[in-house]
Amino acid sequence: MPYFDAASSAPLHPVARQALQASLDEGWADPARLYREGRRARMLLDAAREAAAEAVGCRADELVFTTSGTRAVHAGVAGALAGRRRVGRHLIVSSVEHSSVLHAAEVHEADGGTVTQVAVGRTGVVTPEAYAAALRPDTALACLQSANHEVGTVQPVAEVADVCREAGVPLLVDAAQSLGWGPVVGDWSLLTASAHKWGGPSGVGLLVVRKGVRFAPQGPADERESGRAAGFENIPAIVAAAASLRAVQAEAAEEAVRLRELTDRIRARVPEAVGDVEVVGDPVRRLPGIVTFSCLYVDGETLLHELDRSGFSVSSGSSCTSSTLTPSHVLKAMGVLSEGNVRVSLPSGASAEDVERFLQVLPGAVAGVREKLGAPAPETAVRGDFLVVDAVGKLCPIPVIELAKVIGDVPVGGTVRVLADDEAARLDIPAWCAMRGQEYVGEEPADQGSAYVVRRLA
Amino acid sequence: MPYFDAASSAPLHPVARQALQASLDEGWADPARLYREGRRARMLLDAAREAAAEAVGCRADELVFTTSGTRAVHAGVAGALAGRRRVGRHLIVSSVEHSSVLHAAEVHEADGGTVTQVAVGRTGVVTPEAYAAALRPDTALACLQSANHEVGTVQPVAEVADVCREAGVPLLVDAAQSLGWGPVVGDWSLLTASAHKWGGPSGVGLLVVRKGVRFAPQGPADERESGRAAGFENIPAIVAAAASLRAVQAEAAEEAVRLRELTDRIRARVPEAVGDVEVVGDPVRRLPGIVTFSCLYVDGETLLHELDRSGFSVSSGSSCTSSTLTPSHVLKAMGVLSEGNVRVSLPSGASAEDVERFLQVLPGAVAGVREKLGAPAPETAVRGDFLVVDAVGKLCPIPVIELAKVIGDVPVGGTVRVLADDEAARLDIPAWCAMRGQEYVGEEPADQGSAYVVRRLA
Repeated sequence: MPYFDAASSAPLHPVARQALQASLDEGWADPARLYREGRRARMLLDAAREAAAEAVGCRADELVFTTSGTRAVHAGVAGALAGRRRVGRHLIVSSVEHSSVLHAAEVHEADGGTVTQVAVGRTGVVTPEAYAAALRPDTALACLQSANHEVGTVQPVAEVADVCREAGVPLLVDAAQSLGWGPVVGDWSLLTASAHKWGGPSGVGLLVVRKGVRFAPQGPADERESGRAAGFENIPAIVAAAASLRAVQAEAAEEAVRLRELTDRIRARVPEAVGDVEVVGDPVRRLPGIVTFSCLYVDGETLLHELDRSGFSVSSGSSCTSSTLTPSHVLKAMGVLSEGNVRVSLPSGASAEDVERFLQVLPGAVAGVREKLGAPAPETAVRGDFLVVDAVGKLCPIPVIELAKVIGDVPVGGTVRVLADDEAARLDIPAWCAMRGQEYVGEEPADQGSAYVVRRLA
Repeated sequence: MPYFDAASSAPLHPVARQALQASLDEGWADPARLYREGRRARMLLDAAREAAAEAVGCRADELVFTTSGTRAVHAGVAGALAGRRRVGRHLIVSSVEHSSVLHAAEVHEADGGTVTQVAVGRTGVVTPEAYAAALRPDTALACLQSANHEVGTVQPVAEVADVCREAGVPLLVDAAQSLGWGPVVGDWSLLTASAHKWGGPSGVGLLVVRKGVRFAPQGPADERESGRAAGFENIPAIVAAAASLRAVQAEAAEEAVRLRELTDRIRARVPEAVGDVEVVGDPVRRLPGIVTFSCLYVDGETLLHELDRSGFSVSSGSSCTSSTLTPSHVLKAMGVLSEGNVRVSLPSGASAEDVERFLQVLPGAVAGVREKLGAPAPETAVRGDFLVVDAVGKLCPIPVIELAKVIGDVPVGGTVRVLADDEAARLDIPAWCAMRGQEYVGEEPADQGSAYVVRRLA
């Protein structure tokens, strides 16, 4: 039963399991106490900190353990902003950051701060120039992920760090997706990561604050972890996290080559085998194990369900049918097709056989979903040389399916107006036009939702 | 090697270990995902929530798992205060709460809120009348521990909850020390607890918010745990926490009788065997496993070190010689002797033999410390019928030792002025007077520190 969602959470690495079990007997006491159980706990904690710092490429006294990557981001962003409050309250983030960064930015904004979202290109990558343009005299902090969690695109962290350094602005790097593959290169100031992403246990994150970076921890005072992560330390999990990080990094070079070959196969063969597919993310500067593609005329959640029935666990950035009714902010920021989105993220050790089987199962699963969704007849009304498709009240991917069905019914040069109130249409209709060589004329307000105007070119 | 500091952290209960190991294989995936690994993780999480809720005596949807008791307190206090911001910004806490509560109160105060600390009696207990007197029309929240962590005194939670309920004010109960002994009785509104205190793993706390209690989670948004505890769930630890809570509560009635008998022995025999000892905390309304006493003319940290060398791990609320130079806020609030303070907190399963051995070792350890400290000769200067002891620059317990040495040198009715600049003297000199039947006249400002005036009565 292949699990292909390592970017969400990786199964426990054998080294993590071993270290966890070995330290349950010695790691439960309070490391702040001076008696022997406390001293043993302190020794384990200190050794784990040394090991993790070496794997990150920082000093041990720059690194604290938090209870998750999310907590590391929240504490890191809040502490760095507060530390530079006298400089100003401007925060820079990329538009494709993890939700923990964006949510930290939201509370900063709600609290009177200002936030600039740096746009990305169609592959999801930022440019150092865009960060340079966003920097202001009152910029307190900039944030950039080392690699994107949905599409695997690797960001130019070292270049952006240089730009920030020149302006005297600290850069916080969310390294959640990449730390298992190796230290983050570049002159960054703060770094966060999450152990369960590299095969460590749940309940452990890292927050690194380089010496010299102004940092003022927020929230109630607590003496643990240099005052940067409140609450009793989970030492067995911390030991397991550090041990597995070293183990995973030691295997990384070899495993990266193997997984990259497997994801290359998926990148190359899915468009052929499935049709009407857009593979998204940078084809070269990307994490070894992640590949993401979107399938026209497919609802992502139904496809995930079909794949789960066939034994494949993958995830999707298109949640058209989930409770939120909005497609992933990452795909939106990239301006790519979001419908029928599938993210395959291979865990360490994923087998070539399983990937081959996935490539055999996928086309049938997509075809099945498309067949089911193809049924509803569009309500169309002919008005001169243009057609109106009324898809109000219909959810992604129905508006695009109905557009595709009628485009051939207007003459070349004629237009189709798609009336839709589903948020995803705004993204997916232009994407469909780009894929199909049709002209996307634009969006106009309509009675309910919007009218999306498409001109037939071919 | 007996470990007698269960109130800090308890060794892992066998049921916790078993549950943790059993769920490592199934609990690592993201419970928000719909594929089978996610569904399995969700099932484990839901079952743990049901079990924990039953042990607490609440509905499952009222309970979320946090990453520590401290985090539960921070989130609970902040969320409850924000939820009732329209009512006002007044917070009530007892003066003997755990530091996590007091630190949460500090940030509230720093943010413009007001805080009332309810005083305790000499046994560390609050009265419902004192809470009633502290309530104001703008009171947003009251906090009270179920039992004190340093002296074991059980608080009248149900009565205080009634007083608060009548005023329409929610009561948050920090149940960290007592939940393993059974549910907290009474009509409380919020409750927090910490798994490693009952033999569960580190990394898990509980926050219960009763239906109908206004609650507005603070900090960056996060969809996990009803938005009340950000970060990826540590499901294996949560499963272990819930399983061990049930196991510990099932053993509680029998174990309580056994431990109470052991702590009664300590309460009765330490004063006889050691001399010049004040046993603190309520003799009856107290937790079964905790007993705390203070030894005159002893420095707590040195005594702890001696006991550690003899194989006993205990802790102390008197940190005269630690970095902070202030005695425990709990002992201070109770107005009891703080010097030479020792807290014995027996873990589940502590043996009578170990307790007997402790009672044999303790008198020698105390005598040894007293002998070492007895050496310095007091600098005294006779001025009529009173003496001046210059203990400026000397740390606890030296000022009290020097006072005791010279009290016999003035006639009955005469006075001794102790000049001291150590914070602990303010607490310990009056306590010594009460124990010795001498009159504590008062404190006066002096060139350096204060002059503490004592009149010889006997």
